[in-house]
Amino acid sequence: MKQDKVIGIDIGGTSTKFGVVNSEGQILGQGSLVTCETEDPAHFVERLKSTLRPLMNGVSSIGVGAPNGNFFSGSIELAPNLKWKGIVPMAKMIEEALGVPVRLTNDANAAAMGEMKFGHAKGMKNFIVITLGTGLGSGIVINGEVVLGHSGFAGELGQIITVPEGRLCGCGRKGCLETYASATGIMRTAHEYGLNVKDAAALAQAALEGNQKALECFEYTGELLGRSLANAVAFSSPEAIFLFGGLVKSGDLLMKPTQKHFEKNLHNVFQGTVKLLPSGLKESDAAILGAASLF
Amino acid sequence: MKQDKVIGIDIGGTSTKFGVVNSEGQILGQGSLVTCETEDPAHFVERLKSTLRPLMNGVSSIGVGAPNGNFFSGSIELAPNLKWKGIVPMAKMIEEALGVPVRLTNDANAAAMGEMKFGHAKGMKNFIVITLGTGLGSGIVINGEVVLGHSGFAGELGQIITVPEGRLCGCGRKGCLETYASATGIMRTAHEYGLNVKDAAALAQAALEGNQKALECFEYTGELLGRSLANAVAFSSPEAIFLFGGLVKSGDLLMKPTQKHFEKNLHNVFQGTVKLLPSGLKESDAAILGAASLF
Repeated sequence: MKQDKVIGIDIGGTSTKFGVVNSEGQILGQGSLVTCETEDPAHFVERLKSTLRPLMNGVSSIGVGAPNGNFFSGSIELAPNLKWKGIVPMAKMIEEALGVPVRLTNDANAAAMGEMKFGHAKGMKNFIVITLGTGLGSGIVINGEVVLGHSGFAGELGQIITVPEGRLCGCGRKGCLETYASATGIMRTAHEYGLNVKDAAALAQAALEGNQKALECFEYTGELLGRSLANAVAFSSPEAIFLFGGLVKSGDLLMKPTQKHFEKNLHNVFQGTVKLLPSGLKESDAAILGAASLF
Repeated sequence: MKQDKVIGIDIGGTSTKFGVVNSEGQILGQGSLVTCETEDPAHFVERLKSTLRPLMNGVSSIGVGAPNGNFFSGSIELAPNLKWKGIVPMAKMIEEALGVPVRLTNDANAAAMGEMKFGHAKGMKNFIVITLGTGLGSGIVINGEVVLGHSGFAGELGQIITVPEGRLCGCGRKGCLETYASATGIMRTAHEYGLNVKDAAALAQAALEGNQKALECFEYTGELLGRSLANAVAFSSPEAIFLFGGLVKSGDLLMKPTQKHFEKNLHNVFQGTVKLLPSGLKESDAAILGAASLF
């Protein structure tokens, strides 16, 4: 049998999605599992192995996108939104479990590769993908290449200190952007506003029903996110910034205030040079296709 | 006569420096003139022409570094620290005045090219040069190339909003980093602290003599600069950040608090991967050599 398929795996803070992808970029089948049932990454790899084993026919390799994933080392290192602590050599662990070559990168870098190959960033040389999920990730493309930097960890916009001495982050510092602009972050805002909602989807529903405090949560999130994205433009001057992930499902609720504060804070030399857009891909697809495109 | 020399010009907020550079990167002669005697850039070009005309023997081309310089268009656009307003087609104007091809880029990008060719960044693929002069400029190198971005204006770290609703900037917005971390910025801090000093050099002298308020000015500047540079690392993960320009002459006064707040705010995945260093080049040389290396 021809070994021409790749499995793309997107490890998220809450769930891990995977898909079998052919050489034309079609997802032939997909599924998901809970990421951190325990604090032991070996336990995750065991469950992953049992789940993927039946799908390995004709699969030549596996690409993985993961929070704090390092392309150079193949490790997940000090990820604030995962229960696994320290440095987890995930590429090596999956390689040993499933017997095919494995490459790993940051989950948002994988999403950026997916957006470039199959989404709205086709043909763009300079753009940024922001993933708004449990945390906030970013994949930065400059001159047509995902920026990895000297350490391999470039593009951690969620870890930019936005509110000095602000909210405690999983990384141990205070005021990181993702403690405000992420599904988790907006829930912290909701609780500060005294709102009793179970998740970001419920918060969005309350806002759509006209709840003023819920609307203010989106406004505040959009303010911090919009300003931070305007600052990111001063760094790399992208042609577009794509917002991607669970929190973007709330549509205009988040996009409108983000756009407003983005434009308000954008330096005048960048006016008219950059667009803020929702991703052109289904949430799960981009990261899976991006991870698969590591091969 | 062999036409193998290039003139490098560094247009600064206060003065403009130039040098005649040979193909080995030696500066054969240099000089300077006041940048904005008037609000008319044509007047500057006239004075530049009279000054450079006697030096043009054997000069094949001219490279220019300028604040808000755009490599793609050859223009200086909306520079907050120059009296010239709007879009000034400086490359074209100098070309017409002196009759040789002219290329122009951002002054800090030119400094980064100089640092890469002749300074401490030799052999580095990922680094950032921060110029602390009248304003704050930055040249960002990723994968061995200066980042220009989609607009040509990438690397405007001085225009990152660091203190929301903070000091009014020349760009019309509030709280930009350079309104705090630059020679002009630290003087605004000094005045806020009630210090009556004539310039940044006098402020440094007062601090060296133990003036507590003057020391606090450097501490505060270092706090904002250090945190902003830690945020920049989260973006592109450089191997080093080089500080360059007039304000760095104050040595440890600024470097120590900047280093302290840089390390305090650096995300743990970047610990040990990045150095904060003074530039390896004489202030005037880097920008001149960098500008000259546009050819």
